[in-house]
Formats: sequence, C-alpha cells, structure tokens
Amino acid sequence: MTIHHLEPQRYYYTFAPHPPALRIRSGDMVIAETMDALGYDAHGQPAPQAMKHRVSGTSLRESNPTVGPIYVEEAAEGDLLAVQIQRIRLTRDVATSAQSAHFGSLTGEVPGLALLYNDPVADLHYEWQLDLERNVGTLELPNSRLGRAEVSLAPFIGTIGVAPRYGRAETTLTPGEYGGNMDCADVCEGATLYLPVWADGAYLAYGDVHAAQGDGELIGTALEVPAEITLQIEVLKGRAAQWPRLENQTDIAAIGSTRPLMNCLRLASLELLAWLVDDYGFDRAEAWQLMSQVVTLRVGNVVDPNYSVVARFPKAYLP
Amino acid sequence: MTIHHLEPQRYYYTFAPHPPALRIRSGDMVIAETMDALGYDAHGQPAPQAMKHRVSGTSLRESNPTVGPIYVEEAAEGDLLAVQIQRIRLTRDVATSAQSAHFGSLTGEVPGLALLYNDPVADLHYEWQLDLERNVGTLELPNSRLGRAEVSLAPFIGTIGVAPRYGRAETTLTPGEYGGNMDCADVCEGATLYLPVWADGAYLAYGDVHAAQGDGELIGTALEVPAEITLQIEVLKGRAAQWPRLENQTDIAAIGSTRPLMNCLRLASLELLAWLVDDYGFDRAEAWQLMSQVVTLRVGNVVDPNYSVVARFPKAYLP
Amino acid sequence: MTIHHLEPQRYYYTFAPHPPALRIRSGDMVIAETMDALGYDAHGQPAPQAMKHRVSGTSLRESNPTVGPIYVEEAAEGDLLAVQIQRIRLTRDVATSAQSAHFGSLTGEVPGLALLYNDPVADLHYEWQLDLERNVGTLELPNSRLGRAEVSLAPFIGTIGVAPRYGRAETTLTPGEYGGNMDCADVCEGATLYLPVWADGAYLAYGDVHAAQGDGELIGTALEVPAEITLQIEVLKGRAAQWPRLENQTDIAAIGSTRPLMNCLRLASLELLAWLVDDYGFDRAEAWQLMSQVVTLRVGNVVDPNYSVVARFPKAYLP
Amino acid sequence: MTIHHLEPQRYYYTFAPHPPALRIRSGDMVIAETMDALGYDAHGQPAPQAMKHRVSGTSLRESNPTVGPIYVEEAAEGDLLAVQIQRIRLTRDVATSAQSAHFGSLTGEVPGLALLYNDPVADLHYEWQLDLERNVGTLELPNSRLGRAEVSLAPFIGTIGVAPRYGRAETTLTPGEYGGNMDCADVCEGATLYLPVWADGAYLAYGDVHAAQGDGELIGTALEVPAEITLQIEVLKGRAAQWPRLENQTDIAAIGSTRPLMNCLRLASLELLAWLVDDYGFDRAEAWQLMSQVVTLRVGNVVDPNYSVVARFPKAYLP
Repeated sequence: MTIHHLEPQRYYYTFAPHPPALRIRSGDMVIAETMDALGYDAHGQPAPQAMKHRVSGTSLRESNPTVGPIYVEEAAEGDLLAVQIQRIRLTRDVATSAQSAHFGSLTGEVPGLALLYNDPVADLHYEWQLDLERNVGTLELPNSRLGRAEVSLAPFIGTIGVAPRYGRAETTLTPGEYGGNMDCADVCEGATLYLPVWADGAYLAYGDVHAAQGDGELIGTALEVPAEITLQIEVLKGRAAQWPRLENQTDIAAIGSTRPLMNCLRLASLELLAWLVDDYGFDRAEAWQLMSQVVTLRVGNVVDPNYSVVARFPKAYLP
Repeated sequence: MTIHHLEPQRYYYTFAPHPPALRIRSGDMVIAETMDALGYDAHGQPAPQAMKHRVSGTSLRESNPTVGPIYVEEAAEGDLLAVQIQRIRLTRDVATSAQSAHFGSLTGEVPGLALLYNDPVADLHYEWQLDLERNVGTLELPNSRLGRAEVSLAPFIGTIGVAPRYGRAETTLTPGEYGGNMDCADVCEGATLYLPVWADGAYLAYGDVHAAQGDGELIGTALEVPAEITLQIEVLKGRAAQWPRLENQTDIAAIGSTRPLMNCLRLASLELLAWLVDDYGFDRAEAWQLMSQVVTLRVGNVVDPNYSVVARFPKAYLP
Repeated sequence: MTIHHLEPQRYYYTFAPHPPALRIRSGDMVIAETMDALGYDAHGQPAPQAMKHRVSGTSLRESNPTVGPIYVEEAAEGDLLAVQIQRIRLTRDVATSAQSAHFGSLTGEVPGLALLYNDPVADLHYEWQLDLERNVGTLELPNSRLGRAEVSLAPFIGTIGVAPRYGRAETTLTPGEYGGNMDCADVCEGATLYLPVWADGAYLAYGDVHAAQGDGELIGTALEVPAEITLQIEVLKGRAAQWPRLENQTDIAAIGSTRPLMNCLRLASLELLAWLVDDYGFDRAEAWQLMSQVVTLRVGNVVDPNYSVVARFPKAYLP
Repeated sequence: MTIHHLEPQRYYYTFAPHPPALRIRSGDMVIAETMDALGYDAHGQPAPQAMKHRVSGTSLRESNPTVGPIYVEEAAEGDLLAVQIQRIRLTRDVATSAQSAHFGSLTGEVPGLALLYNDPVADLHYEWQLDLERNVGTLELPNSRLGRAEVSLAPFIGTIGVAPRYGRAETTLTPGEYGGNMDCADVCEGATLYLPVWADGAYLAYGDVHAAQGDGELIGTALEVPAEITLQIEVLKGRAAQWPRLENQTDIAAIGSTRPLMNCLRLASLELLAWLVDDYGFDRAEAWQLMSQVVTLRVGNVVDPNYSVVARFPKAYLP
C-alpha cells in the first residue's frame, strides 16, 4: 500500500477521462487539498487561471473545481470502486455561502438559467466564522432578533465521482450514476462510498467540501470550504452496481441522482433493493416489504441540474 | 375543559363539513378509537356497511375510515387549530401491510389507476405480530436468509385533517392544505399539529394509525393498526397559516402535500420561512440562509394522490 | 326532446352535487348564458354577491363561476354523459386577459400561492376588442414595434364538468377525471364531450368560455368572455370511462388532468388505448404501436392546480 | 460555396468534440447518408463493429449512430449555427419500430434502467413497409379488427446536434441545449434549425431519421429509417441563443429539452420570448400576453433521458 500526496496542477470542471493527475494501485491511499466550491484555497486565494481547465458557457462554469482524475490501475468497466473516506480536515476558518440569481431550490430550476418569468432573487454573500477546535460555525444575523447563529460542523465531500457511463462527460455541478455533485451529508469521514466503474482506470476526482449543510442545500450553497482529504481506494472486481452505494457504521445506502426528485427516490430505492437481493439473500418481495418499514430517506441536493436522494437500510436487518 | 369519549356512528372517507359527530369547545379533550386503514377494528372485525359513508368510484374508496368530524365551536376561517397528541394506544397485536396493484412508490402513480403500460405488481398481504409490551413488531420472512425481522414500533396518526379550503371535499387518501393522509411519522405522541381552519367549526377527523413506517411509505402501506387516540384541541384565533405546522420537543416544522414531490418540499420550506419571519423576528434573507444550513427534511408519503414532505427547523435557533 | 332555457340563480365555484338548477331527461337540450372567468356578464357587470356560492379561502375563490348543476334523470354511476356542443355564441365584444402574481406557467405553480422565493410577477390587465362579425380579436401593443395584433377567434368552453369521483368536491379552477377547468381548445362547437358519471344525476355545470387561447394558456388567462351555450345532453348507459373523452369530425380523443404534466399525457394515452381496445377491436400491443405513430397531443392548460393534455387519434384509423 | 459528400468512417454515440470527419466553411453544403437509429443501413446491414465508436455501459449504447462531427471553420462560442435542411431522401423501403423493456413513455423513465418494481413490458419488433412513391407506410395488424394501417410519411431528422456547453459530452440518445435526440417532427425538409455554438468549430453531427412519428414518440421508437440528408450550413456570428431555435414557412420556434416535461415547455417558451424581445422589438410583457394567445406547443419525445417540447409563434405576428 502506497500513500500518495497529490499536488493538483489543474482543476477540472467536468468528470471525464482527462489526462490522469495520478496513477495508483488498488489499496493505495491518496492525500490531497481541495479548493472550495467557488475556487478559493486555504488562504482565500483563487486558483491561477492557468490551472483551470477551460470550458465553454458563461454560467457557473467554474463551480466545484476537482482534483484528479486519479487513474486506478486495476479498475475496469463492471467493477466497483470502494472509496474509504479516512479524513476530512478543514483548512480555513472561514466558510462562504451565497444566495444567487437563478439558483437554489425555490428559484429557477436550471442553474444559471431562468425558468421563470419572475425577476431573479438578489445575489447575497455570507461569511461563516469557523471555530475548528470547538467544531462550530457562526453567522451574524444583524437584521434578525436572534442576532447570530452557531451551527455544529459536520464536514462531508460535496463532489466526488468517476468518468460517467456511455462515454459522457458531465460538469462537476451535476450528480449522476458516476457520483458527482451529490451534496449528500452521508459522504463524510468514516463512510465508504462505492462508485460503479464505467471506464478503465475509473478516473476518480473530487472537491467541494461542505463544513455543514441542511437537507436539500435549499439556498444552493452550504458552508463552502477548502480541505485536506485522505482517501483509501480499492477496486472490487466484478461487483457491478448501477448507482453509487455507501456504507457506514449503521447503514448501507444507495444514492439516486436525476430529475424529477421522485425519480431520485426511485433509483435509490431500486438500487438498495437490488443490493439486498443480490448480496444478502433477500427474497425480492420480502425485501421490498421490509424496506418500506425501515428505510430512511435523506435529500442531498435539490438545486443542481440533477437532484440527489439517499435511501438507507439499517445494518441491523442484514443477516 | 371537558373530556369527550367519542363513539363513532359513521366512518367517513372524505374530509368535508359532514354532520358533526361531536361538538366541543376550545381546550376540550377527545378520546376515540379508530379503525385501521383498511377498515378493521381492534378485534379484526370490519365496520358494518351501514356505518360507512357511501362514495362513488370502486377503487380504494374505503381506505382510511375517519372518526369525526368534530365541530369546534370557536373555530372560524383564519384561525389555527392546535391538536395536541397526548396519547396513541394501539389496540391490536397484529398489524397488516400489503403490496397492491397500481399502488406504491414504484408502481402506477395514481392510486388504483395504472399510469403504466406494464403489468401491475402482484397483490401481497403481510401480517406483523406486535409485542405491545416490548414495543416491537415482527415479520416472518420465510424466503429470505434473514428469516424474520423485528422492528421497533413508533406509532403515529397517518390521517388527520379538517374541512378543506375553497369548499372542496377531499378523500381520506389524499393529503393537502387541510392535513389529511400525510403519513408523516412526526405526527406522533407528544407532538402538536397545527391545522389551518377553512370552515367555521374546523370539522376535525382522523384515523389510520401506523405502528411503524419507513420514510416514504414506499410499498404504499405501513404497519396498519387500530388505536385509541387522546387529543387536546385548542383554537388559536387569527393565527392564519397556509399549510399544516407541527411542533415537538426539538423542532418546529411545516408539512407540504402536493405533486410533484419537489413542490411538497417547496411548500414546506416556504411555510417554515413564513413562520420564522412572522412569529420569530427573522429577516427573510437571513432566515433563508440559516434554514439552508440547519433544516432537516423528512419524506412522509410518496404513494398517495399527493405526496408529503416535512421541513423541520431546530428550536435551538429560535430567539 | 325538450329545450330548456336555464336562468342561473346561483353561480358555483365547486363541482359537487349542489342543489340542481335544472332537471332534464337524456336527449334534452339546454341553453344558458355563462359569465366570463372573472365573473362578469355580457354587459361587463359582475354577478350580485347574493348569487355567488360562498366558499372559504381568499385567493382565486371566485374564478370560473359555473351555471348548473344540471341533474340528468337517467344518469347513474358507471354511465357516460355525452355532451354535444351545438353552439357557443359570444355575448360581448370585449375580452379580458390578465397577468397575475403567483399564477401562470412561468411563475408559482399553485394558483394564488407562491412556490418561489422570488418576487411575484406584476399584475397586468389587458382588453381585447372583439369583432364578432369578422371573428377576430385585436389587442393594442403600444410598447412593441408590432403595434397591434389581430387574432382569429376560436371559442371553446374552458370549464365544464360533473360531480367528481369518491364524493369529492373540487374547485372550478381545477380539472380532473370529472372534467372541470381543462381549458382544452378541442371542447368547441361541433365536438361531443363524454364525461364519466360518478354520482346519480351527473350534476353537469359549466362556464368560462375562451374566445381564443394558445396551447397551455401560458399566462394563465385567455380571451375571457361571457357566452350563450347550447348543449344537447345524452346518457350512454354503462359505457364507463375513467377520464373525459371527446369526439369531433376528424378525431377521437381523451383528456388527462393531473400533475405533473407527464402524467396528464400518460392518463390521456392510456384512456385512448383503452377506448381503442374496448370499443374498436384493437389488439392492445398493436394499438399502442399504431398510436405511437399517429397520435397528436395538445396541451390544454399548464397553470391550474392540475394540468391538462389531450391525446387525439385520427378517425381514419378506426375500423 | 462547396458541396461536400461526407462518407462516414466512424459512427459516434456521443455529441462531443471528436476528431472531425469533415471541415467546411460557412455557407457550404453537406450530403451524407445516415444509418437508422438501430444502426442499420439502406440495405438492412449493420455498421461494422470497427466503425463504431466504443462507449461503456451495456444498455442502448449503440442507439442513434451519428455521422460527423463536421467542423465549421468560422463557428466560435457565442455564434449560432444555421442548418438549413434542404432534403431528406429515404433510402430504404422498410422502416422498423419496436417496443422495448424499460423504454417508452408508459414504462420505466430512464432508458434501459427500470424505475419500477413492476415487470418490464415485452420486447416487440415491427416492420413497416414504405411506398416511397406514394409516400405512405403500412403496417399489418393481424390481431386487430382494422387489419392494416396506412400512414402518411413525414420524414424528419430525429437526432442532430453540436458539441454541448460546459465541455460536456452527451449521448446521442439525449437531447439538450446542443440539440441532440429531440425527435421533433418540425426538424424536417424546408426548415432551418439554429443551434447555439458552444465549442469553436461547432462539431455538428446527425442521424436517426424518422419516416413518420406521432407526438411524443410514445412507444419509444418511430418509423426508423436510413436516409440521405442534404444540409446547407451557415454561421451567424454573435447571435447567441440558449436553446435550439427553428424557422419554417409559417412559424418561428424554440425547442426546450430537459426533465421534467413542464420545464421543457418553460425553456422553450422563455427562449421564444427572448427571441421576440431581442430581435423583433417586442415589449416583454406584451410579447408574453400575445404568446399566451397564439403559441402552439408540440411534444417531441417523452421517452429519452430528456424530453423535448417545441413552442411555435406564427410569423404572421412578426412586425
């Protein structure tokens, strides 16, 4: 097992088989520092233009810069990439959040593009102060009776994925069957994320850590921070899945990302059902009845081009 | 304050200003026994045909029989009805659940009516044994490696509502701005549900207790049981709301019920936002930023004619 | 066959088994004058308050006043009511149209209730001058290079329906399995609309004529006019349908009304498929293949609580 | 002006900046033969495996092979590519159509992936005989009373697009802001399609001609045929659009492709509105009122990963 320290030379805004930033073997560990979603580093500095992979289109094109892609030698189409999140260390004591025109769960539904005749919402910018010792973030609320709010931090990786199915390339603003910008708080320290491999080498890339976030990421941004991330990456041969899966201390889970929202829930539920039947010896009908009584659902994001829902099944019910 | 023991003479399948089964005053308490969603009582007996309010249409027309309606003397349009759920006592040690053709989150989307060219799913019936001492339900899974599952009970009222807005009458299978079949697990013992009053007297009715249920009620039914329910009912004058609200030890919450699912989430979020601004001195923009970082969302049902989502805001952030 | 001249004493804002304004026999003809959608008559006068059926809720509660209900003696649950539209005579030379806050296809999705954080659109009012001889409507466009637009009139009944299924009452702003505010331009002179009967007597009611309208009624209103409508009404015994059907010179059609929009299309397509199989001797799979190549779809409204889509099949392919 | 005869060496299943098959100048004409959607040529022969661009994922990965991409020298990001469809000549007298598991408007919603617990529909294959002289297609219906159906042909290009925005690559099964598999019958001989240019050179590619199709392509396939297509291609500098636009004898139109269906309609309507305001001197509010009364909507496909809707505005109302 090798530990790699990845120093990004280029930040990508698409998930695709770009020239690998690093080649590793199954079982290796990778440590890398990520920018925040808006492209600022631990010192609040933006990435130099020369380090940004150029893409067309003016709107939101530089959201969620990712480090990578990491080429995993053993990974081939039909495998599963097990990404164990060993550590997420926040590297800045300020988190930014924003309200943006044509973005967010209650405004236009396509990022950067109005779906409304109405006027867009105002652009507003917020700074959260982070106390990394006490693990809390605070926001001044000068116009509210409350005055200021203090929120517990619960960091997770907002954007992590591989090269998509069918030879597609997708923006790092979009989640899908390749992972991507799922913004699911379950993708946190201690969890193992399983990503289906669609292209030989997998091409893992990631960034966009959130220090804290409510369900749905309603306003379109969370507490956006840079971080140092430690991952251990393993290839599970021939363990094909259709959608990202996840495992933590208490649950196994599946993540569905599409539109409309109801179909996220369907994809996640069906992927979980398939997992129970294929790997845990459940009869399909019995699994479906049991799932209906014990599954918990968590809404990841409802703002991106695709929404995300996590369906979780308690490990207590695994044989 | 009077305690009323309500003995149902008729079970209704619509929320509407039916002839009241009981007239009470604000602050009174009501104790009543409800049938399960399928119309069976504590002894597993169906309600006599004569006690069922007749409605047209053959499909699902006798789901969720409700007791009531209760006419609350002080309640007028524009008020809020505070329904404190003091006790839900299960009255049977068997819960039923089912998988039904043209019903459930992964089948046809309109209850009882296919939206698919595909064949419907098989009708399957399940019996859960309840141990009311240990507060668990168990299901035999003869075809699965697990063999049997034991689930903790967490009873709640699946269907509770008032006469709808605009003079409508709605089935007890449908949730909406009047409450109804929301199937939200938060509507449990210890919680206070706030229902907007749309018709003088409010016309509160309820039934359909679930002993346990996963998020979304994916298969379309939960652990369906009869129960004895104790409510204290109070009128809050002129405290208009647009959608049901809820309060418990830790959270205030709002419930949105419509289609598509995304709009449930929007309705619930906007109702919560209005509450924070109107009653708790929040600036609208600041409340929206804070909500985005601390709100939790819970999917009630994704099977009924309307879906339901609960948006919850921690009381810790109320001034 | 009797010809009835119906003089409305009361305008209803819900489809429900209200006290009948008229009782007729199958085959009878009814002539009645309807108000426009906003409640104004041929002389631009509003209905007296005393003639309006009172309903709760402040928003849009007086849209689409209907005349009726008409009780048809032979009509029983399970029958089909054939409503032949013999004549729609416009009775005013001014049509009104409007842009309203929280209404319209590109604004909030629930009439009268925001689903947005954004500001609502401005309220704007338009007057179209109608030339009933030349059958055109003209609108001044003072701020556009075009200056004025002249549109051909193609009047149809926007709102027509019976008492709904399951004992529900629905607002005249909402379309559904009972007809209602479908705003489908195919419901015009010369067409026969078939409505499923859910309550003995059917309880037919109607109003809200549009002098012209684009597909989808995008802004939320059309050229709103009062009219004198002549209908011949016949009961087809035991010819159960699930959704409104329609027939004209060239096509048979079915109308689905629900949310989301995709499900309107599904309901309409499945109802049409059932019609072809049940009445015209089509094999289901073959009908589905043929439908896929020859059906035309027309979007009725995409602004009401439920949307409407018409699926049309050319009579040329009926055996 | 040069006329190019393009002989495909490779068929692509993604829209992306692949190595160009041809480089042309603005104003040039291109004649090329396309395969049918399933990859069969004028002689019913499949493309050799070596000519197929390999992509991952097993399902539907070889649908809609496209010829191209064509690199247009003058085309740069922010331009509009005007594609005049001069001729569509069908090259086979048999069209194929199919009903496929997990595909079609009334089955699972994600092509090739179930969104349902139900069993998938049966796979069925149909052969339509084409009489290219009489311009009709006929299908035997052995199990239906009708016996056989004869349909008028109205050929159009099902799949045509450029390299997508934001550096994405998309499958030829998916429509979007780059065009793609829109399956809009308006993209026919005599029409000019305007595609926004997102990458220098545009990278135009196309295929998948339909000899005839009903609105929505309900079953998921039309009368699938190979064809020889003649296009004249021109670059309009700096005429940025957000979504494909179209012009024919009677209408200008815009095409929106996304999910859910309602948002297709919104995108198309807003793009049309922008066009009227930007190029034709309409006041925005007046244009919106007029559009609402005269726009016609046509549903392209409701089966692909994204749906498509065309919004059309009569040229009669252009100043």
